[in-house]
Amino acid sequence: MKLYIGNKNYSSWSMRPWVLLTQADIPFEEVMVRFDAFTPDSAFKTALKNISPTGKVPVLQEDDLLVWDTLAIAEYVAERFPECELWPHDQADRARARSVCAEMHSGFGALRSACPMNIEASLPDTGALIWRDNAAVRADVERLVSLWRDCLRTSGGPLLFGNFSVADAYFAPLCTRLITYTLPLPEDISAYVQRVLTLPGVQAWMEAARAEHDFLAFEEPYRLHR
Amino acid sequence: MKLYIGNKNYSSWSMRPWVLLTQADIPFEEVMVRFDAFTPDSAFKTALKNISPTGKVPVLQEDDLLVWDTLAIAEYVAERFPECELWPHDQADRARARSVCAEMHSGFGALRSACPMNIEASLPDTGALIWRDNAAVRADVERLVSLWRDCLRTSGGPLLFGNFSVADAYFAPLCTRLITYTLPLPEDISAYVQRVLTLPGVQAWMEAARAEHDFLAFEEPYRLHR
Ligand SMILES: N[C@@H](CCC(=O)N[C@@H](CS)C(=O)NCC(=O)O)C(=O)O
Ligand SMILES: N[C@@H](CCC(=O)N[C@@H](CS)C(=O)NCC(=O)O)C(=O)O
Repeated sequence: MKLYIGNKNYSSWSMRPWVLLTQADIPFEEVMVRFDAFTPDSAFKTALKNISPTGKVPVLQEDDLLVWDTLAIAEYVAERFPECELWPHDQADRARARSVCAEMHSGFGALRSACPMNIEASLPDTGALIWRDNAAVRADVERLVSLWRDCLRTSGGPLLFGNFSVADAYFAPLCTRLITYTLPLPEDISAYVQRVLTLPGVQAWMEAARAEHDFLAFEEPYRLHR
Repeated sequence: MKLYIGNKNYSSWSMRPWVLLTQADIPFEEVMVRFDAFTPDSAFKTALKNISPTGKVPVLQEDDLLVWDTLAIAEYVAERFPECELWPHDQADRARARSVCAEMHSGFGALRSACPMNIEASLPDTGALIWRDNAAVRADVERLVSLWRDCLRTSGGPLLFGNFSVADAYFAPLCTRLITYTLPLPEDISAYVQRVLTLPGVQAWMEAARAEHDFLAFEEPYRLHR
């Protein structure tokens, strides 16, 4: 299996399946396609021409098969490696885990657009302004808190559905944003964020992101340079 | 099983699981929650208070279990009723079907926002202006055409993955929009749209939508009245 990803510091969608595979110890080859301006003839789009039907990353390739879009990749990997139990074992829990992933997949737009992923950066003042002025971001974080709390209470923790599952991989990029922008969180939720950020698969991604030393202005609404 | 849905004329997300269940002959009870302004204390939000964690429809309820978000509902139903083969049988086809559904789930934003679903309306002039002026809508339709063409070529048709699958239910609301706004389509793709629109499950939803006779101004950027 080959996984095509973008910059580790910036590409939140790439992070999800990479963390999922790494944390589950499933071997794969990583192909990094550096972000650029995403114009039709850019190096990024050219590199993905025969790989990604949407021109986006991530894409998983296995022989002739191309699986694009994070949620489809997660389902495919979970099916291919049932012994990893990437979805919760219980049918009702599995349905809830899929609900929270699907909610993440098409939701939390305010938080995602105001606080783009930027693992190496530390932007507490920017975060404080966003928190003060952007009610939609506050609403997204409020929903996140209640969603995580419900899952943790039902499962008993330590992760959303007990052991590591697709759901934790799905929220890992959000956990990094909460830290980069130092958004205020209740203690139980901070503790969950810390548990996610210390998973070996998440640590490995974040270390590589910090070692990247790449600066892309269009991914940096809040910095002029590193 | 109970499925909570919104107005049949307007609620494109509700249409997907309703069509899936109906077309597969799976019995369910429908609970319609009429759209309104979606303010926190609106009748819509109040009715969904203990049902929908996101305050949105659709939600599937079975005993204690609540499954929210269309993609999670589709996965749950496909698991509960394996004999219906709602996902393609072949693993690679299934991965592709999930990729196209996930792409739809978080994509086609320009088409969705410029051309809201409105089954009973006929808006060819509005559609012609959108087509002339909105390059992002044209790009979304172009991607749709190439996506559908790839699937139909690979499977041989008549539907995206041969027989009816989640993927066709997922695109059914888009098929109605292409007709409401009379957007230009190549012949092979028009023929697919017609095949979707004549599926009994899709017909049943559309007839009910036309019988609704409800007019909600915030869902009607292009009409002052019916
Ligand atoms: N829904 C897609 C989103 C993928 C996505 O937006 N990827 C970004 C990078 S994080 C991308 O490739 N952007 C390039 C572009 O927008 O042209 C998924 O879940 O895989
Ligand atoms: N990603 C969700 C989208 C659900 C959605 O946006 N539903 C709309 C009706 S079609 C809704 O309930 N809107 C109410 C609101 O936005 O407050 C899904 O796939 O189920």
